[in-house]
Order: sequence, then structure tokens, then C-alpha cells
Amino acid sequence: MSQPARGDNPLRDAQDRRLPRIAGPSGLVIFGVTGDLSRKKLMPAVYDLANRGLLPPGFSLIGFARRDWEDEDFAQVVHDAVKEHARTPFREEVWQQLAEGFRFVPGEFSDDEAFKQLKATIEELDAARGTGGNFAFYLSVPPKFFPTVVEQLKKHGLSEGQGDSWRRAVIEKPFGHDLASAQELNQVVHQVFRPSDVFRIDHYLGKETVQNILALRFANTMFEPLWNRSYVDHVQITMAEDIGIGGRAGYYDGIGSARDVIQNHLLQLLALTAMEEPASFDAKALVTEKLKVLTAVKLPHDLGRHTVRGQYTHGWQGGTEVCGYLEEEGIDPQSKTDTYAAIKLGIDNRRWAGVPFYLRTGKRLGRRVTEIAVVFQRAPHSPFDTTDTQELGQNALVIRVQPDEGVTIRFGSKVPGTSMEIRDVTMDFAYGESFTESSPEAYERLLLDVLLGDANLFPRHQEVEESWRILDPIEAYWDRHGRPEEYTAGTWGPKAADEMLARDGRSWRRP
Amino acid sequence: MSQPARGDNPLRDAQDRRLPRIAGPSGLVIFGVTGDLSRKKLMPAVYDLANRGLLPPGFSLIGFARRDWEDEDFAQVVHDAVKEHARTPFREEVWQQLAEGFRFVPGEFSDDEAFKQLKATIEELDAARGTGGNFAFYLSVPPKFFPTVVEQLKKHGLSEGQGDSWRRAVIEKPFGHDLASAQELNQVVHQVFRPSDVFRIDHYLGKETVQNILALRFANTMFEPLWNRSYVDHVQITMAEDIGIGGRAGYYDGIGSARDVIQNHLLQLLALTAMEEPASFDAKALVTEKLKVLTAVKLPHDLGRHTVRGQYTHGWQGGTEVCGYLEEEGIDPQSKTDTYAAIKLGIDNRRWAGVPFYLRTGKRLGRRVTEIAVVFQRAPHSPFDTTDTQELGQNALVIRVQPDEGVTIRFGSKVPGTSMEIRDVTMDFAYGESFTESSPEAYERLLLDVLLGDANLFPRHQEVEESWRILDPIEAYWDRHGRPEEYTAGTWGPKAADEMLARDGRSWRRP
Repeated sequence: MSQPARGDNPLRDAQDRRLPRIAGPSGLVIFGVTGDLSRKKLMPAVYDLANRGLLPPGFSLIGFARRDWEDEDFAQVVHDAVKEHARTPFREEVWQQLAEGFRFVPGEFSDDEAFKQLKATIEELDAARGTGGNFAFYLSVPPKFFPTVVEQLKKHGLSEGQGDSWRRAVIEKPFGHDLASAQELNQVVHQVFRPSDVFRIDHYLGKETVQNILALRFANTMFEPLWNRSYVDHVQITMAEDIGIGGRAGYYDGIGSARDVIQNHLLQLLALTAMEEPASFDAKALVTEKLKVLTAVKLPHDLGRHTVRGQYTHGWQGGTEVCGYLEEEGIDPQSKTDTYAAIKLGIDNRRWAGVPFYLRTGKRLGRRVTEIAVVFQRAPHSPFDTTDTQELGQNALVIRVQPDEGVTIRFGSKVPGTSMEIRDVTMDFAYGESFTESSPEAYERLLLDVLLGDANLFPRHQEVEESWRILDPIEAYWDRHGRPEEYTAGTWGPKAADEMLARDGRSWRRP
Repeated sequence: MSQPARGDNPLRDAQDRRLPRIAGPSGLVIFGVTGDLSRKKLMPAVYDLANRGLLPPGFSLIGFARRDWEDEDFAQVVHDAVKEHARTPFREEVWQQLAEGFRFVPGEFSDDEAFKQLKATIEELDAARGTGGNFAFYLSVPPKFFPTVVEQLKKHGLSEGQGDSWRRAVIEKPFGHDLASAQELNQVVHQVFRPSDVFRIDHYLGKETVQNILALRFANTMFEPLWNRSYVDHVQITMAEDIGIGGRAGYYDGIGSARDVIQNHLLQLLALTAMEEPASFDAKALVTEKLKVLTAVKLPHDLGRHTVRGQYTHGWQGGTEVCGYLEEEGIDPQSKTDTYAAIKLGIDNRRWAGVPFYLRTGKRLGRRVTEIAVVFQRAPHSPFDTTDTQELGQNALVIRVQPDEGVTIRFGSKVPGTSMEIRDVTMDFAYGESFTESSPEAYERLLLDVLLGDANLFPRHQEVEESWRILDPIEAYWDRHGRPEEYTAGTWGPKAADEMLARDGRSWRRP
């Protein structure tokens, strides 16, 4: 592979030189700037973007939180976060220029004075650093505060730009916790911001491997002809975590794995895997296709047979003894919350009718892995002696989302020797080995897209609502039917999940 | 991949345990046993088969040559050849048992006394070692001796077994040097042996990777749907050698690369790549399908534009200065013999109409490599910005026959970064990494098949004749039109070969 020439800034990615996607004059306001997400992801991403030359010279960052900080205190917090979490090396000159644009606004979300100060700060930055009135408001706060914050922004004239300038809102999941609450939330936000100015973060969509689903399917000729019910037997989409709930008890209990992961990440992966080729690669065309898939998703008639939820019990994980979910700190010992969920979905369209999509996610599973496995039908006939091919599985194309990002194809190959024995082998592509460029963090990509107004990696409100439409009946069924199945921490989920696939004559991959 | 349990003989391949393909009572007679092929390939293959437990206990080997040797002298020659060239470790007990069945018959091919002694030797072995009258005659001699040897075998009653026992003839290329001489040769051999008892060795067909073409295509579901004119743009079959003619001047001059390689190896690879799925994997079904392809092969109308021959001139190869073909010892300085040949063929059937198959072979090329590259059409439409995909080539599936045996898929993947740039990457399967079993030598496989009477890796006389039908008009055209193009040793052939593909808007792979 030829390597494009690099410019004087060694940290600016080669591909960004060729097609500069550099944000114009702008700034970012983070509400809830003292939180984990802000320190671990957002601040480092801002620095990394600056370091790669993708932010405008006058880019400014305003922190808003209930702290008695001066700008310098805030800058120190960002500095520490960048030093600890940034992807690219620390360069003093980049830091200095960036830090000149840091401001801090102390206050409660209900505090009018604080919002007046925010407005003044924005105006000061427009004048001093040329941010041009273009600001994104990142709501890194629990959803219950969304209404207050967006209403305050509206009340203080911050939610709309003057003339050509823009104002955008960035929100994080959970986008509601069922269809009704999601609709309510969307209504609140859209009363203040136009739908096209609202950016919902699903950080999975910022991952290279997820974006590569589209490249793989539509920049190549050899996969798409196979990508349909004539050749595909089923699809498995897995997001397995080895960790437990950590310190997230307050958020997690009552939500559970299906709402936390399937509703957003896994249904988005399903949509990208199953959708038709979009007319173009812009946000509108993409959303159109994703929505078509989500709308066509069909629940199984018998939810008892085709969905499984689980809850981990005491066990061992990589040599460490770990407690069960009900023993976790802050969890109701009677909790029925699922820490594992597996569901079977169909897609009622010409391409996919009859092809099951199995989605599963869980905490405290065997290992951390996210992958999409497209499993092909067996050959309709084999000219080889059947005894020679007994170890032969099905062809599969596996997109490894994380870790070990890449693509694997499983196929049958002759075993060396003097008989025609055939055994499964794999063919592998690894991102890390094939590219010298390192992958930007999902948040780098997504923050830059927000500043550029490029919405194609952000789920639209219709997608969020469609996803709840899919999940709500399952959650309702689970509510009515007893408790989750138990599974031992460190295993691959409850036995019922294996039985669910076994009834279909299939089995889960052990990734 | 699960590993079948191994038995007490650590050298017996796992797959052979599962499906024992062990030769029954039999012996092998080698004519021309003092030659290179015999010492480097046949003797080691016999030992390796014995070592792997695939020969019967009483297996016997008779050498026939114009030497004043006793059995012990012959055994010593085999011993040295095995020590030097065998694939598996030397084990004294295997050797001892094998060597007891070694006999030597001295004589000229025209010498009746020698053939009487051969007959007596066979009878002695049948009695002493239970070879059961089953003997294969390996004619490791120049084709001009074929008539004499087979007629002597017939005359002395050696060409037909008694009762259930069998007699087989094994012959090596060249199978004639045009259609007429091939037909004549086949006639001579078939006057003595039934067609089904004649085994023509094309050692390429004994290679694991060549046999894997069929496994890849027909034991899997994901390749065959793409394997046709709807998706394939063209196919390139390459056998490149880095060596010159070595000591083969006497054989090579006047024959050339097309007769030496394209007529047999490359047309067989073409047939295996292009053929329909056979009804079964037995010899008859395979030959039927290969023949259908060869019969459908169509020559281009304008042979001047779609074939190229070359002859290497002085140059450098891997740091070594090498002489041109015309300066090689024993070569006529006016020789028009081709050391490079490239031809374009079509296949007139429903699957392949309009898809060119480009075949090339040559000596003193850039490096030693044999591969089959199935190059797919470009995507009919790309939803990505064209500037993002300018480095994107065509999808290709490459079967690496030798060295680095395996399969490679080339496809486009997103380059890590914040824009949708797509670049070609490869996905790789390597035999050596995927299997613990080491590959048998082609001759091991083929000798065992001869003893088993399994003919499916041996081209039938009809295939040989069809291949000459394809090549004859090209050779005739070349005869009438000047000299081969020159190319510098160590390069990838004459410029005319690049131009030939460029006229079709394509280019040769640089493997």
C-alpha cells in the first residue's frame, strides 16, 4: 500500500491531509464537566483533535459545573485529564494555544446568573478568539437534567445562532428508558433545537470497525452478492463484557443489559449490517436506510422461547473471585435486572426474510469482545465423501469490532495429507497490522463531526424511537415473567441462551 | 481446530489414521532409475510413504537401468537418495523392512534377457514378499523410449496382471510436443495398457494447494456464488521461475516455456479453476468436468495481439549476474525458443463467456511464484466520495500454489482516521500456520494414488490432447512470426506482455 506524503506536522494523519476535515471557527460547552466521561473521553479528545491540527486556532472550551473554580483550576483539570488519557503525545505548544481558550462557568443548571455568565463568556470568546458564535453544547449530565438545561439555553438566547452561526446540542444515552420516555425526551429537546442540530452520541458508531462495515459491504464487490437470505443462514451480534457493573449500580439497576446495550449499540450494528446500500454517504441517506431496517424488524411470536435474560452469580474471572450481581454494592438484593440478554429478531424484507439475527450482550462473560458474525448456509451439496468433512462448520465472515479489530473469514480447506479431508480454517485481516495510521478514539471522531455538522454517525430520534418499539414488548414480557436466569460470572451466559439457539439447530460462537 | 488423536506411530499422519488410504500388496518398477527424478523425488517418496505406514509390508521396488549393479548397489543408491531428500526422519527399522524388497535389473530397454529377468524378479517377489502380481511401471525415461519399453512389457507378458492383479504404467511429461505426436504417443501406450491403467504425472496436481482449489470452491458456500462472469473480471494464472534452464538445455531448446508449462500445468490449473462442480470426486467425474472446460477454451482471433513470447537476456538475479538464454551452454545462438509465454484465452460457456483467462510463465523472472488470481469486477457503484477511493483496486482472491502456500483475499477497508478513505488491504490464510500436518510431497501423493489405482489427480489422454489443440495454433503462429521479444533476466518479462494486458485495460499482478 502506498503511503501518502506527510506534511510538516507529523501528528496530522495522512488521510486528513488529503481530505482536510478541519472544523471551522467554533467552541464547545460541556455541561457536567467534572464527570468521568468528560475527563476520560471528552477532554482528551479535544486535545487530540487540536494536536492533529483538526481544530481551528481559536477553538474554545467552556466548562460548566457546580464547582468553585477559576479558569485556571479548570485548565489544570483538563491538563491532568489530557496527560493521563490523551491518545497522541503531549506537545507544549499545542497545549498552550489550546488552553488559552479555556473558560469555566460555575453554577447550577437552574441558576439564571450562571447562564447569563455563560452567554457573556461566549460573546467574549467570539470577540477575543473568533469563535464566530458557533457553539456546541455537550450535555454530559443525567437525562433528568436535559429539560432544565435546554430550557435555560433557550431562555437565555443561547440555543440559536445569529446569522450564519450555529448552535448544536450533543446528548448521551440513555435516550429514555422506553418508547414513551424517549418520545418525551425528544420532544423536550426539539422544542429548543432543530432535529438536525441534535447529535445523539452512540460511541460505537465512532469506532473504526463499525464504520468499516459500510466500507466492507459497499466499497467491495465480493461480499454484497452473498449478503442476503440466499446465502446467509443467520447473523450473530455479540457485545460481551468481562467487567461487572463497577460503580454504576445507581444507573444500571432497573435498566439492565438490554436497555443499556441492545437498544442502542446492537440495534445500530444490526441496522448497519442489514441495510440496503444508501444513495450516498450523507446523514440523511444513511438514516433513511437504517430506519427502513429497524422498521422492518419483527419480534418472534413466542418471546419466552426466543429471548433470554440472565443475571450473574458469584464466580471467577481470570483468576479473580467476583461477587454475584445481587451482592454488588448498591444493588437491591431482590433485583430482577438483567445483566445478560439474548434476543432473536427477524427482518421482514426481501433481503432478509427468514434469516434470524441473534443479539446478545452481557456483563461478567468469558471475555470482552464485540463482533458481528455473518454465518453462511452450508454448501447445498458436497462432492467430497461425507466422512472427510465431518469437522466442517459453516462459512462465516466476522467483523471484529473490539478488541483485535479486524475481519475474519472462516472457510473449509483441505488438510495436508493424502486424503481429501477438509477442516475449518480462518483467514484474517487485522487493522493493527494493515495500517500504520492509529485509529482515532470514537470521541475524537464524533466531536469533530459535531463541530463540522456531519451527522452521519449519529442516530436520529426516529431510530431511537424505533429501537424502543422493538425492545419495549420484550421488556414488558420479562416484567411479567419471573426472574432472570442465573449464570456464573466468567461463563458465557445462562444455559437457556444455549438452548434458545439449539432449538433452532444453531449454536453461539465462542469468540 | 480440534486435533484428532494420534496413534502409536508418530509419523503416520492424523488424517491417514482416520481414513486409511493404505496401498494393498504391490510393487513398483522404475525404468531410468539412475536419473535425477528417480533419486530426488521417487526414491524419497517411496521411503516417506513407507515411513508413514501407507505401504504394505511386502512392498517391493525394482530398479531397471543400464548399470552393472547388484541389488546391494541399488539399495545403497536408494539409501543415499533417501538420506538426502526424504521429507520424514530416517528410521532404521522402516528402512530395513523396505530395503528387503529392493531388487535391481540391469539392462538396455531393447534387451530381451533383461525383461526376462524382470519377469522372474516380479515372480520371485510375488512368492517371497506377497506383492500379489500388482506392479506399476514408472517410465522415468525420455519419451522416445516409451514405445520400446511398453512393447517389451507386452512382449514379455508383463503388461497385464493375472486374475485380480493389476499392472499400471506411469508416464511423465512431455506427453508429445504437439497434438499429432501426443496422439501417436497415446496410441503406442494404449496398445499395451488400458487407458484407465495409464497414469500421467503432472506433479502440480499433487500439490496440496492445487487440490485445495476444489475444496475451496466446493466445500464452501461463499466463493462459488461469485465464481462466474457476473462477478469475475478476469483470471490470471502465473507460474514464474527465477532459475534459468540449468542443465536442461538439451530438453528445453526447441520446446520452450509454453510447451513445458502452459500445455500441462497452467491449463490444468485453468481447468480446475473454471470447471463446474463434478458429480462426485472420483476420477471419471473430474475428468468429465475438466474436459468440458478445455473443450470450451477459445483462442483469441488475433494471436499477435493476445499472445506474447519472450527470451531472457543477460541480467541480474538476486545480486548474481546471469547470462542470456542464447549464451547458455548447449543452446543454439540463433534459437527462437521461448523462455517466457503469456496467452489470453476465453472459455465459451455460460459461466465464463467474456471473462479472459491470462496465462503466463517464464524463466529468469523476478521471483519464483505460482498463483491463481481471480480478479473481481469493480463495485458497480460506490456511495463513497470518489476522491476517497482512488487507491482502491479490484477485489481479488489469490490461491498461492507455491511458495508460501495459502489463500489471500484483497479487499477495500476504511483507513483509520476521521474521513471515509478506503484503501486495499489483504486477508490471509497460510497453510503453514493453520495446520500442524506438514504437506506430503506431490510425488508421495501421486505414487500412493498409482498404487491405489486412484486416478483423479492424473490428466487423462483426452485432456492432454485438448491442451495441445489449444497450444498448437499459438506455436504455429509464433513459428511464422519472427523471434521472441527480449526481456532482461530478473525482470517480469517482455514489455509486450504488459502492453498486451494494458490494451485490455488491465495489468499483471506483481506477486
